[in-house]
Amino acid sequence: MAGSTIGNKFTITTWGESHGKALGVVVDGCPAGLPLCEEDIQVFLDRRKPGFSQFSTPRKESDTIEILSGIFEGKTTGTPISMMVRNTSQRSGDYGDIATYYRPGHADYTFDEKYGFRDYRGGGRSSGRETIGRVAAGAIASKILKELGITITTYVSSIGDVHIDRNNFDADYILKNDLNMPDPDAYEKASILLQDCMAENDSIGSGVECIVHGMPAGIGEPVFDKLDACLAKAVMSIGAVKAVEIGDGTEVSTARGSYNNDAFVMNGYNVDKETNHAGGILGGMSDGSDIIIKAHFKPTPSIASTQKTVNKSRDNIEVSIRGRHDPIIGPRAVVVVEAMTALTILDLIFENMSSRMDKIIDFYK
Amino acid sequence: MAGSTIGNKFTITTWGESHGKALGVVVDGCPAGLPLCEEDIQVFLDRRKPGFSQFSTPRKESDTIEILSGIFEGKTTGTPISMMVRNTSQRSGDYGDIATYYRPGHADYTFDEKYGFRDYRGGGRSSGRETIGRVAAGAIASKILKELGITITTYVSSIGDVHIDRNNFDADYILKNDLNMPDPDAYEKASILLQDCMAENDSIGSGVECIVHGMPAGIGEPVFDKLDACLAKAVMSIGAVKAVEIGDGTEVSTARGSYNNDAFVMNGYNVDKETNHAGGILGGMSDGSDIIIKAHFKPTPSIASTQKTVNKSRDNIEVSIRGRHDPIIGPRAVVVVEAMTALTILDLIFENMSSRMDKIIDFYK
Amino acid sequence: MAGSTIGNKFTITTWGESHGKALGVVVDGCPAGLPLCEEDIQVFLDRRKPGFSQFSTPRKESDTIEILSGIFEGKTTGTPISMMVRNTSQRSGDYGDIATYYRPGHADYTFDEKYGFRDYRGGGRSSGRETIGRVAAGAIASKILKELGITITTYVSSIGDVHIDRNNFDADYILKNDLNMPDPDAYEKASILLQDCMAENDSIGSGVECIVHGMPAGIGEPVFDKLDACLAKAVMSIGAVKAVEIGDGTEVSTARGSYNNDAFVMNGYNVDKETNHAGGILGGMSDGSDIIIKAHFKPTPSIASTQKTVNKSRDNIEVSIRGRHDPIIGPRAVVVVEAMTALTILDLIFENMSSRMDKIIDFYK
Amino acid sequence: MAGSTIGNKFTITTWGESHGKALGVVVDGCPAGLPLCEEDIQVFLDRRKPGFSQFSTPRKESDTIEILSGIFEGKTTGTPISMMVRNTSQRSGDYGDIATYYRPGHADYTFDEKYGFRDYRGGGRSSGRETIGRVAAGAIASKILKELGITITTYVSSIGDVHIDRNNFDADYILKNDLNMPDPDAYEKASILLQDCMAENDSIGSGVECIVHGMPAGIGEPVFDKLDACLAKAVMSIGAVKAVEIGDGTEVSTARGSYNNDAFVMNGYNVDKETNHAGGILGGMSDGSDIIIKAHFKPTPSIASTQKTVNKSRDNIEVSIRGRHDPIIGPRAVVVVEAMTALTILDLIFENMSSRMDKIIDFYK
Repeated sequence: MAGSTIGNKFTITTWGESHGKALGVVVDGCPAGLPLCEEDIQVFLDRRKPGFSQFSTPRKESDTIEILSGIFEGKTTGTPISMMVRNTSQRSGDYGDIATYYRPGHADYTFDEKYGFRDYRGGGRSSGRETIGRVAAGAIASKILKELGITITTYVSSIGDVHIDRNNFDADYILKNDLNMPDPDAYEKASILLQDCMAENDSIGSGVECIVHGMPAGIGEPVFDKLDACLAKAVMSIGAVKAVEIGDGTEVSTARGSYNNDAFVMNGYNVDKETNHAGGILGGMSDGSDIIIKAHFKPTPSIASTQKTVNKSRDNIEVSIRGRHDPIIGPRAVVVVEAMTALTILDLIFENMSSRMDKIIDFYK
Repeated sequence: MAGSTIGNKFTITTWGESHGKALGVVVDGCPAGLPLCEEDIQVFLDRRKPGFSQFSTPRKESDTIEILSGIFEGKTTGTPISMMVRNTSQRSGDYGDIATYYRPGHADYTFDEKYGFRDYRGGGRSSGRETIGRVAAGAIASKILKELGITITTYVSSIGDVHIDRNNFDADYILKNDLNMPDPDAYEKASILLQDCMAENDSIGSGVECIVHGMPAGIGEPVFDKLDACLAKAVMSIGAVKAVEIGDGTEVSTARGSYNNDAFVMNGYNVDKETNHAGGILGGMSDGSDIIIKAHFKPTPSIASTQKTVNKSRDNIEVSIRGRHDPIIGPRAVVVVEAMTALTILDLIFENMSSRMDKIIDFYK
Repeated sequence: MAGSTIGNKFTITTWGESHGKALGVVVDGCPAGLPLCEEDIQVFLDRRKPGFSQFSTPRKESDTIEILSGIFEGKTTGTPISMMVRNTSQRSGDYGDIATYYRPGHADYTFDEKYGFRDYRGGGRSSGRETIGRVAAGAIASKILKELGITITTYVSSIGDVHIDRNNFDADYILKNDLNMPDPDAYEKASILLQDCMAENDSIGSGVECIVHGMPAGIGEPVFDKLDACLAKAVMSIGAVKAVEIGDGTEVSTARGSYNNDAFVMNGYNVDKETNHAGGILGGMSDGSDIIIKAHFKPTPSIASTQKTVNKSRDNIEVSIRGRHDPIIGPRAVVVVEAMTALTILDLIFENMSSRMDKIIDFYK
Repeated sequence: MAGSTIGNKFTITTWGESHGKALGVVVDGCPAGLPLCEEDIQVFLDRRKPGFSQFSTPRKESDTIEILSGIFEGKTTGTPISMMVRNTSQRSGDYGDIATYYRPGHADYTFDEKYGFRDYRGGGRSSGRETIGRVAAGAIASKILKELGITITTYVSSIGDVHIDRNNFDADYILKNDLNMPDPDAYEKASILLQDCMAENDSIGSGVECIVHGMPAGIGEPVFDKLDACLAKAVMSIGAVKAVEIGDGTEVSTARGSYNNDAFVMNGYNVDKETNHAGGILGGMSDGSDIIIKAHFKPTPSIASTQKTVNKSRDNIEVSIRGRHDPIIGPRAVVVVEAMTALTILDLIFENMSSRMDKIIDFYK
């Protein structure tokens, strides 16, 4: 596969460049009978929209979704759902000069090396706008998961050295602040830090956490399509992510077994765990606890301060990236991490349906 | 796909359980004309063999590879290469009691939930022995990469709180010590730490790093089959890995853009970078610098100290895992990380071959 | 995969229903650097347009293609090419009554059984209009093949009992007659036959042949992704095709080996064959001769004469399909067969690029 | 994918050459809990064994299956099932001279063109022995289908010009005669024809039919993974098949719609059809009627009479294929067609499980 498709049973194929005519996605494998309308998608898309925050680019992108197929009388038909957002406000002229050199931290050089040339306008295919298709598809996956009792909470857990305090965790606050943090105190500190960054024409990194609640046990396919392996791929495929952790993540490499093992314990008639260092995944399959994923986003590579680089004529030059760019990626990427998580989990939930003879026989009875 | 296959062009399918008759792998998509013999594979397999170290299980597993197909007159024919290792020394009796309860930190519970029952002998399919197939296939991928000028160095970079010192880095030392560390001082400290762990019937986590040298630029398929995304999946699919980092990894979430961006700079006639925070990957494609991957392994879940858990009758019980187990996973997993990296990179190198019209026309001229 | 995607390296994903907002396709894996514009696609689409013939539905569908992504400055960029045709002239009202019963020979019943309900307007997803996406993608594949020296000729070879006479074969005539036949005499006879059919409110079957010229030898992947196997799938996936033949096809089951074997013979410095009963494929790989494929199309199932069927309330009823429908499928399907053939061959040409070590090493040198 | 794997949910990967150490298959995606033993497989394999008939090669191949993984306490565990047959009686010496030239009708030339050289012993990977893996896997698929109430009957329907008479159809006779025909009279005539062929050092073609009974409606994924499209690929991937027909097959191209349409009619409370020209498939999905598939096999290409060909030095030469070969392919291929049909149907039955929201919700309740 050429790389624009993910998923085996619930597959999505995204297309589109930052400054092309439109961007979109085709969702194939959506089951028939799900009530679905454009508003279901728009709510998700609006969460990644720029221009709503003091910390994001003032570009106004309306990003209005249009569903082109796969729905009849308000319900999915089981056929592909094609969705599209027309590009409206792109000013290509802004980007003319970046055609001639390679922006540090961007994909300019690698695109040129791979394909011989590139659509340099706004990053082309490597633009954050490519995630429109992911988020639109994720909105559908999330709606299906909700019908199965599975919900996802995603938020910015750190910005630079400012980390949320789990004692202050307020889920309702996440969508009420322009940094999508669940802790008002951390939000205050991060705001100050970001204003500082912007004043210095600099940018900063961030962490995004995602919690999946209500997972059935046994989801994930050993040995390569493990739940954690598929999540790692899906989340690492988001631009700017440089690390993915499950449960305790990097901390496990300094932990002892007697601490890291989660003791099983009965909770009424259900098997439960005393702790959840494993982040809800054992042997690549869900164990029924919350799934915990963390993504680390690098700082926005587009910064106004002067940087060294080379141009296409192979000269060493200095550049300063014009235009106003978000000084941080995490807040707008929260919904992208959530979308990729929802898509991955749903795909494996569908994959799992043929894992036992007794259930197959029941299904076709 | 049911989960036992990875790769699109250079695909591997592993099979086998810890205490079944045999374990193996089918490699499909290996190009014709590669000189290959069993010794090429055996050298890799011997690197994951237990029993060679004071820190690993004293079980003697000969793990002798047999190539069953795909080779003619000493060269690959382009047809599938089937390889197998017979299980010889397993004593199933050791595992009878674990049939009745769920070991903390293991896949016992999740296998039962998914499939209704499990082959409990030695972990069955979730045993570390499943990696025999991965390593055998990785040996082939590595040999092909070497013909393309690409080499891989992998080692244990941390055990508990003992981290290697990059100033002491000695690549030759890696295969000369039973912890596969590249730093003699760190090895000494880690040895003491491990003896301590074993004395306490406990285990400890570890970090494994992998450096790929000689990568051509432009390898990786945007947007989902990015090089880093595919590496993340491949490495996270190794049992006990809970975090994967590329380049600076988790540190990027606290870094500033002015620091994290790697400046491009001419190196003679070649484009080079002053730093490599990105770990050799930009926009999901290789940039020609070294690829840097780090995996975090949890401590061995099998520990002799008493733990709480539940049994299949849903009673709370206490258990102590009998038998001697490795107190650490990283050293024996070094070659597995290397194999998964080699497999992933080679697959994307093959995928890349049809990315440009001019090169396709040249190819078929 | 949910069924709307075909191809591994050059993949296409079609979407859209007959009476939805639009129909389209996403092409992923198109190499960078191919000059491409909407006119390249439109020429192909116009070949499947209805309303140009006395033998096809008088519905006027403008079917104007819009390329939404993947092109920059007149050339493909290597990123997905999304293409769309807006539906404009559909009159859904015509189809209201078929919501209540199952048309014989159509997919109404099977869609209802699979999905629980269906988009009944104009056949929904099972409409011939779905092939718009295939043809648009096929236009791109054909253009690439042409750059590799490979050309395809496709035509109607039979209508009912009227078969073309190979001695009268006139390739230039194919696009000059509304039945896409290469033999003026056969065209005359078929025209009379069709008028007869239409007078009787009946329809008739047809055969379509496709010849691929200029194939390199060795294309096709043993053992399942053989060239003939992939062609069979691609062509059989076209609605109304009930048989696919390669070379002599069904005749081989009555032939003797001494006749059916094609003798190899030197043609100057090239290996050639005296005959081509095999249709250019041996052991699932191209042998350098012309590839010969034949598809058999059933008669149009929509006929005005009275037919027995059942309705959704499970009553036996009689129906007559209203509206004017093509009395024959083959002529408009010629370009669809050509498209599916081009897509399949190109995909396998890309797959083949990593089959030999020496060529891989050359490629990356 | 490199071509040795087929299926998305129930996948098989075959490996092995005619004269290598062994041949085998890995089945991935087999659900847990199916009782399975080697005898279940051996029964199927014995149906393709040579040496049991006056019309097949007198080579004695014991072809004893060994199951290497995926079974525990007599039941499938949900993990990959690896199966192997050791090659025992191959005499490679017989094949030495064919290394130097290209046998007409064989894959010698195309293998050399693709891979640069070939394992020429007994056809290597293109040998009929490759089907051992298909048949072993098909035995498992058939057993699962039987648990779902689906049975398959396969037989030789024609040899040369001798066709079975459907009025004489005797299903019990199929496995009782060495040509696997269901009609004793046709068997007699075919026997005489074959003796004639053998006396003339010639071979002859044959037709194989396959009937699937008990199919649920709605199986098959529009638009590319249609049931008929997938069957066409699976059956065409068998060596020597040059045409695949569904239902009336090639006859549809001469039929009228009023004849070819199958009228729906109530059968008690069930929707039924008065006729089955469609062969049980409408719009690419099963309609609940019997699935009818026909494969056309070319005559055995290995014949003792003198043939023209070229050698690797590019000289025109004459050859006569030494050794005794089956004069006909169909009878031994009956079980292969049955296996490929079973594998395809089962895969699509598993694919179908996530097609409707209501059934998914029921499944996970």
